[in-house]
Amino acid sequence: MSLKEPGRRRRGQELEDALLDAAWDELNEHGYAGFTIDGVAARAGTSRPVVYRRWPTRQELVRAAIGRALLRDRPAVPDTGSLRGDLVALLRYANEHRVRFAAVASVHLAGYYQETGTTLADLRDAFIGPGTAVEVILRRAVERGEADPARLIPRIASLPFDLFRHHLLMTFRPLPDEAIEEIVDQIFLPLVRPA
Amino acid sequence: MSLKEPGRRRRGQELEDALLDAAWDELNEHGYAGFTIDGVAARAGTSRPVVYRRWPTRQELVRAAIGRALLRDRPAVPDTGSLRGDLVALLRYANEHRVRFAAVASVHLAGYYQETGTTLADLRDAFIGPGTAVEVILRRAVERGEADPARLIPRIASLPFDLFRHHLLMTFRPLPDEAIEEIVDQIFLPLVRPA
Repeated sequence: MSLKEPGRRRRGQELEDALLDAAWDELNEHGYAGFTIDGVAARAGTSRPVVYRRWPTRQELVRAAIGRALLRDRPAVPDTGSLRGDLVALLRYANEHRVRFAAVASVHLAGYYQETGTTLADLRDAFIGPGTAVEVILRRAVERGEADPARLIPRIASLPFDLFRHHLLMTFRPLPDEAIEEIVDQIFLPLVRPA
Repeated sequence: MSLKEPGRRRRGQELEDALLDAAWDELNEHGYAGFTIDGVAARAGTSRPVVYRRWPTRQELVRAAIGRALLRDRPAVPDTGSLRGDLVALLRYANEHRVRFAAVASVHLAGYYQETGTTLADLRDAFIGPGTAVEVILRRAVERGEADPARLIPRIASLPFDLFRHHLLMTFRPLPDEAIEEIVDQIFLPLVRPA
């Protein structure tokens, strides 16, 4: 069967996603120390060579599984009509979908970071490219005159999610809703609002 | 010898500090998985019961060693005459003394967090009480009229070090000096400056 045949290709991607989801679940359950390609194959109901063919080493499989977990639950870009509404919506979404990820990515994967010298920032930069939801909502806010583009230096543009991530890494708990509003209303909007 | 005799007590504290420093070094070298009370006793040139008497479990010893590592390198409170100068000095100090701590505390101690359910925030709250250097320099800045106390809500007061810590946890590398200045000049000072 040709690789270009659409049905076949979709199955290939579906299989790959299923294998990476199984790998992520294995990491959740056993951590990096107890993570094996055999375990992933068994959990996905397939054979060891099916996994090895795609990711020849344990480290490559872990990295791909992290990438898939990072990208799997990406939010739809909110469009509430205001920067405040969009940003609160995005942070609430992240709060619902990223807490478990942060715990697994920092605690369960500690051995992986030690072995490979990888950091969370490396993974973020590798998998989360330009065109994120934050960039889209900030561009719209500038068009509406709600944010001054001269004030949106990268460190300020990333501030709400940097503070969110800091909270996650420190506590492994969701950010309380009042904290989301405080970050948006008392910190971020005053910094970017046009003078 | 009476416990109240000053010389005796000092030796007791010195011994305790030496044991905790040895414990921290063991964590650095072997991680939590390879951490043993025997290893700590050997490294400190003492016997197992000397350690056990003070910290009956491995977990108690690890917690005390983290506390000692957190408190050991506390900065002298800078007094440069301006909020900007004080804050830059504190962040530079942290940059020099906290990077290795962050790497050990997050990566090497992952097993400890899993076993005990402790988080970095729990440890920070337990060991870093009120009266930190940041609080002192902010109080002085308010007295000099450089910061509006109404704007110094806790989340803003902790913002420079939250961003510093976020960088450390994501990269295990020092914050570049330009980043320190950006955090202070573009983010923190505009938020707290009196209107």
